[in-house]
Amino acid sequence: MFDVDAIRADFPILDREVNGKPLVYLDNGASAQKPKVVIDAVVRAYAEEYANVHRGLHTLSNIATDRYEAVRGIIARFLNAGDESEIVFTSGATEGINLVSYGWAAPLLSAGDEIVLSVMEHHANIVPWHFLRERQGVVLKWVEPDAQGNLDPQAMIDAIGPRTRLVAVTHMSNVLGTVVDVSAIVKGAHEKGVPVLVDGSQAAVHMPVDVQAIGADFYVITGHKLYGPSGSGGIFIRKDRQAEMRPFLGGGDMIREVYRDRVIYNDPPMKFEAGTPGIVQQIGLGVALDYMMGIGMESIAAHERDLTAYTMQRLSGLNWLQVQGRPDNRGAIFSFTIEGTAHAHDISTVLDKKGVAVRAGQHCAGPLMQHLGVGATCRASFAMYNTRAEADKLVEALELCHDLFA
Amino acid sequence: MFDVDAIRADFPILDREVNGKPLVYLDNGASAQKPKVVIDAVVRAYAEEYANVHRGLHTLSNIATDRYEAVRGIIARFLNAGDESEIVFTSGATEGINLVSYGWAAPLLSAGDEIVLSVMEHHANIVPWHFLRERQGVVLKWVEPDAQGNLDPQAMIDAIGPRTRLVAVTHMSNVLGTVVDVSAIVKGAHEKGVPVLVDGSQAAVHMPVDVQAIGADFYVITGHKLYGPSGSGGIFIRKDRQAEMRPFLGGGDMIREVYRDRVIYNDPPMKFEAGTPGIVQQIGLGVALDYMMGIGMESIAAHERDLTAYTMQRLSGLNWLQVQGRPDNRGAIFSFTIEGTAHAHDISTVLDKKGVAVRAGQHCAGPLMQHLGVGATCRASFAMYNTRAEADKLVEALELCHDLFA
Repeated sequence: MFDVDAIRADFPILDREVNGKPLVYLDNGASAQKPKVVIDAVVRAYAEEYANVHRGLHTLSNIATDRYEAVRGIIARFLNAGDESEIVFTSGATEGINLVSYGWAAPLLSAGDEIVLSVMEHHANIVPWHFLRERQGVVLKWVEPDAQGNLDPQAMIDAIGPRTRLVAVTHMSNVLGTVVDVSAIVKGAHEKGVPVLVDGSQAAVHMPVDVQAIGADFYVITGHKLYGPSGSGGIFIRKDRQAEMRPFLGGGDMIREVYRDRVIYNDPPMKFEAGTPGIVQQIGLGVALDYMMGIGMESIAAHERDLTAYTMQRLSGLNWLQVQGRPDNRGAIFSFTIEGTAHAHDISTVLDKKGVAVRAGQHCAGPLMQHLGVGATCRASFAMYNTRAEADKLVEALELCHDLFA
Repeated sequence: MFDVDAIRADFPILDREVNGKPLVYLDNGASAQKPKVVIDAVVRAYAEEYANVHRGLHTLSNIATDRYEAVRGIIARFLNAGDESEIVFTSGATEGINLVSYGWAAPLLSAGDEIVLSVMEHHANIVPWHFLRERQGVVLKWVEPDAQGNLDPQAMIDAIGPRTRLVAVTHMSNVLGTVVDVSAIVKGAHEKGVPVLVDGSQAAVHMPVDVQAIGADFYVITGHKLYGPSGSGGIFIRKDRQAEMRPFLGGGDMIREVYRDRVIYNDPPMKFEAGTPGIVQQIGLGVALDYMMGIGMESIAAHERDLTAYTMQRLSGLNWLQVQGRPDNRGAIFSFTIEGTAHAHDISTVLDKKGVAVRAGQHCAGPLMQHLGVGATCRASFAMYNTRAEADKLVEALELCHDLFA
């Protein structure tokens, strides 16, 4: 039974005030807050059990290594990966996608080869591909969402041509909240022999993810949005794709033997993990994912569906406010503007005075902003600990904003 | 006045026991323990002041951004950089050196161009250059230390030929403790027009570092060895070298504008920092460096000089133990073997039973191990919180080891 009050009590920061008002934290799309179990695990890791991992033989190193390596299995379970060796640790989504760009795509793609992207991608799932365009002549093919902000899977599949080598697509838009039918895209792409990278940075926070059911070749998550520490993360890379990859970051742990004239690399997933990793961050991420799975991803999703419907209904009642995108299948991420009166940054500032934390700007989604024809939006993004009452506070603060600027 | 007992009291983990004995932590070369101020700062960052940085306008995001960005100035002060924009945040030394390899060297070096390295380098300062050898025909030129483990600066300078494009050298060997005269190397290399990357992963922990006095083009540090969080770090890159670099990791923050057909990159240092960074890790690193500077790097160095001399004298009294390297200028890092009787891993295990944490293995320094003709060593590496009494405990445990295996 999902108990939002009990969950809220697990997050110390939710007790604080901002500008004399109780914090209403609706900036979860940028980064989520951390439950006490995660903070406590970080403290324990530093204050009682800290050492470097992998290379030690002493007690503390063995404890740290065990705690750290156990997270691979936790992430595998969280994503329903077939084997935990398909999980590569990263510092976040950006490192994960760059790993695929540098380690898989760069050596395999030639000038004229294409990557199909949606216009809704986050810069993390755009700029690494622009590198390939700038450096080796790879062509980026863009697919637009429809007027409601839906991304038609068939449009993505139809964009695949004989030179397409990769489809890179988000599972949930960080601006519009659109949930993309990535299973359909993967099925269609695979029928054409093209692998798919799915950016799960947002989706994995809000719904159960099954990488085997989706069939993704690469599935990216980032820890700091998953109620885990900053600097934590992982990427699912299917075994056959791992085998096609060269190493990305060079250093300790990813090698087996180093000589003056040659290097013998370690086996995956270690081959793709170099140097002293984010030991404590990954340990914290494991605790965060266990916390989420303890509550139940279906329960979290059900709570957020209710929040989504309620918030959409409340925002729709504000006839001076433009919600960007009305996709059929969406999560609790809402971008909006108040045309002609208040700039997104001004809205955000007024909301902050009322304790309501939202984000204003381009949300690392330049091409989508250009497509929408807006310079910036305000974004309210919800998490499992948010409530209908907080949606009400958002609306109240927006009404104040409207009164101020109208 | 340096008070080691007061310092020890600042590190919670030093109170713990291992195998029923007080912990004697001599694995600092792998990673250092964290003072309570750092752990507290991490907790405060997560429990009271957490949000994503840079892109927000709400109170929490502004607080987090201020705390995070302030660390750039702290690192600049710690390294005596001329300008804080010369500090690029990284997740550690490995990411820093890969940034230079991918961002500076890869686009500038051609087949036949050379990189001069010492044989004492850590894999983090070897494997990124091997990538350039494998992928674009760059030639690695190796300089050996002498029989005592000294690295002659002139030998490094003499290795520079007309095709040499970079010298990459450690400031302190993580195996032998050798302190390298990097100022002399930089002076000689610059006279030949060749830039120098200095790996300060070990040195910056144990002595004052002045990147302007050294004259380094690139100076690498890693936070987890500097009493800071895992996953934190930075690299000094001189302005003129930054101007020569292309971006490395692609994603948010390192761009100014993203379109379907082009990208406009941000100015350095942001150009080299992609995606949500290790927000809380960097905040913790700032606190760690302030803690070190509060004690005083000269005081830390003086304490460790005493520890070094004392430990060397005690180890020299064990005529069945082979200390690897007797460099003239050294830090408190000692590698040793007990030839013919105990393997390094067995020594480490016996020491651990006595609560003494040392590392056994190759220490991410394959070429040096091959040069020394040993398969593995035991390494005791000291930090500012270690004491003569702990050196005695190390020696006692080694004597037990000798008795057991002799």
